[in-house]
Amino acid sequence: MLAVTILGNNSALPMHERHPTAQVVTDGERLFLVDCGEGTQIQMIRYKIRRSRIGHIFISHLHGDHYYGLIGLLNSYNLSGRTEPLHLYAPPELQPILDLQMEAAASDFAFPLHFHPLAEAGILFQDTRITVSAFRVRHGIPCWGFLFREQAKPRKVDPDKAFEAGVPPEFFPSLKAGEDFIDSSGHRIANELLTRPGPRARSYAYCADTLYHEPIAYHVQGVDLVYHEATYLDDQRQKAAARHHSTALQAARIARLAGAGRLLLGHFSSRYEELDVFREEASAEFPQVEVCREGATYLAG
Amino acid sequence: MLAVTILGNNSALPMHERHPTAQVVTDGERLFLVDCGEGTQIQMIRYKIRRSRIGHIFISHLHGDHYYGLIGLLNSYNLSGRTEPLHLYAPPELQPILDLQMEAAASDFAFPLHFHPLAEAGILFQDTRITVSAFRVRHGIPCWGFLFREQAKPRKVDPDKAFEAGVPPEFFPSLKAGEDFIDSSGHRIANELLTRPGPRARSYAYCADTLYHEPIAYHVQGVDLVYHEATYLDDQRQKAAARHHSTALQAARIARLAGAGRLLLGHFSSRYEELDVFREEASAEFPQVEVCREGATYLAG
Repeated sequence: MLAVTILGNNSALPMHERHPTAQVVTDGERLFLVDCGEGTQIQMIRYKIRRSRIGHIFISHLHGDHYYGLIGLLNSYNLSGRTEPLHLYAPPELQPILDLQMEAAASDFAFPLHFHPLAEAGILFQDTRITVSAFRVRHGIPCWGFLFREQAKPRKVDPDKAFEAGVPPEFFPSLKAGEDFIDSSGHRIANELLTRPGPRARSYAYCADTLYHEPIAYHVQGVDLVYHEATYLDDQRQKAAARHHSTALQAARIARLAGAGRLLLGHFSSRYEELDVFREEASAEFPQVEVCREGATYLAG
Repeated sequence: MLAVTILGNNSALPMHERHPTAQVVTDGERLFLVDCGEGTQIQMIRYKIRRSRIGHIFISHLHGDHYYGLIGLLNSYNLSGRTEPLHLYAPPELQPILDLQMEAAASDFAFPLHFHPLAEAGILFQDTRITVSAFRVRHGIPCWGFLFREQAKPRKVDPDKAFEAGVPPEFFPSLKAGEDFIDSSGHRIANELLTRPGPRARSYAYCADTLYHEPIAYHVQGVDLVYHEATYLDDQRQKAAARHHSTALQAARIARLAGAGRLLLGHFSSRYEELDVFREEASAEFPQVEVCREGATYLAG
C-alpha cells in the first residue's frame, strides 16, 4: 500500500481554513513527510498522524510555505524525547538556518538528525520496500520533486502448476525468489511457468511548485498517482508563469503526458475560495483528477 | 482602553488544542503583537485580528515557541502587499536568522522593517498615547518582559467651577493642558480648583518565561493587569526551577508583591489538560486571578 495524506493544500497566504503545503506519504508501515509549512505539527495532531513514525522528511524548496513548520516540529521531537534518527533531505541552505535557530535557543537536537543536502537528481533513499528519488522542477529558486516507488513485489507461486510439476513446498521460497525448478528427471522448468506476477509495485510522484515544464512528465512516466501544483486556473496562466507556478489545465497536461493513473491538484491560491473549479478545468484534459482536501488520504493505484 | 487578546496560552509542545505564545495588545486604536509562536497568523484569522493594524512586534526571547510564527507572518505581509513600516523589537540574534531565511527564498521585505535589537532595559517606544518599555526576566537565555503604560490622561474641566470663576469656554483647552486661570480682577486660580483628574492611565505587563524572580514585582509595581507565566503547578516547582519556569503560586506571589490589579496566567505545560487548577492554586495567594483562554480579551483596569 502506498498512500498520501494531505495536511495543507493552500499556497503561501493561509486562508479559507486551508494551510500551507505538507503531505504524509506512507508505505503502509512508515511515514514520510513531504514539505512542512507553518502549522504542520498542529495539522498532524488534528488528523491523528503519529509524528513519531516519521523517519524521513523531504523539503522541496525554501519558500517559507514549504518549510516554516519544520523547526517547530524538530523542536517538538526534542521536547517529547525522541531518540530515533531522523533523515532530512533539503536544499543545502536550510542547514545554517536550523543551526542558527538552535544556537539562538542555546539548544541542540537530542536525536541524530542526518541532513542530506539536495544537490542532484537521483535516488535519495532505498530499502526493501521503497525507493525515493528526487527530480528537478522549475521554480524561482532551486526546487525538487520526489518520486516514491514501491520495490517490485516477489512473484507468487501458482499452487496448481507447482503441484503438477512435483515442486516440494520447501522449494516455494526459492520459486518466489525467481529460481527455476529442476524436476526429478533433471528437466529445468522455467520460473515463469510455476509462478504468477506479484502485486504491482505502486508509485506516487510529488511535483512541487513549478512552471509548466514537460520534462517533469518524463520523470514521473507511468506513475500511479501524481500530485502536481495548480496554484491558478488557466485564465491566470500569465500570472502563473510570472510567479513560476502552474494552472490546473497545465497540471492535467503533465499528467496526460506522463500516462499517470490519477492526478491530485493542490497549492491553491488564496484568491480561490471554492476548489471544484480546479477539478472541472483539469478534467477536460485528464478525467482522473481530484482536488486535494486537507485530512484526506489518497491511495496510489 | 488597554486590553490584551490571547492567541496562544500553551508552552512549547502544542496540545489540547492550545497554541504556543502570542498576544495582541491594543490601546484602542493600534495593535501591538507580543511574541509570535508557530501558527500565530492562523490564530489571527480565527479570532479576527486585523494583522495589518500591527505596527510593532515585541519578541521576548528566542525559544521557538515564542517566535517560530514570525517569519510566516512577515512573509504574509509581503504577499498581501503591505507597505506600512513595521517595528520589530527582539534579541539581536533574530536578525541573521530572518536574513538567512529571506536569502534562501531569494526574497526581501517589500515594506520597511525596522529591527530594534533588545539590549538594555528601558523605553522601547513612546508616543502621545502609550509607552512600551522592556525589563529583564530570568530564563535560560536572555529574556524580556514588556510593560505597556497609557500616557497620563489630561484633566477634565469642571463646568460648574469654571462657570463660577468666569472662565470663558475658549480657555478650556488651556485648562485641560494644566494652566492656571487669571480672572478679570487679576487673581490666579489654581488649575486643580477648576479641573478634575482625567481618566486613570492603565497599564499591562507581560512577564515572559521566567524563574520566580522578585525584582520583576518592582518593574511592574502597581500595574493594572499583569500576565505572568505559570508553566507548572507548585508541586512541580523543582522541575519549574530546573527549566527556568514558574508555578501558578509563584506567579501569584509576584502579582501580590507588585500590588497588581489583576493577574493573568499562561504558558501552561502540555501535561495539564484542565486549566482551572492553575486559577485555584494562585487564588489562595492572589484572588484576582484568571487563566488565559485563547481568543479571550482581558481589559487592563
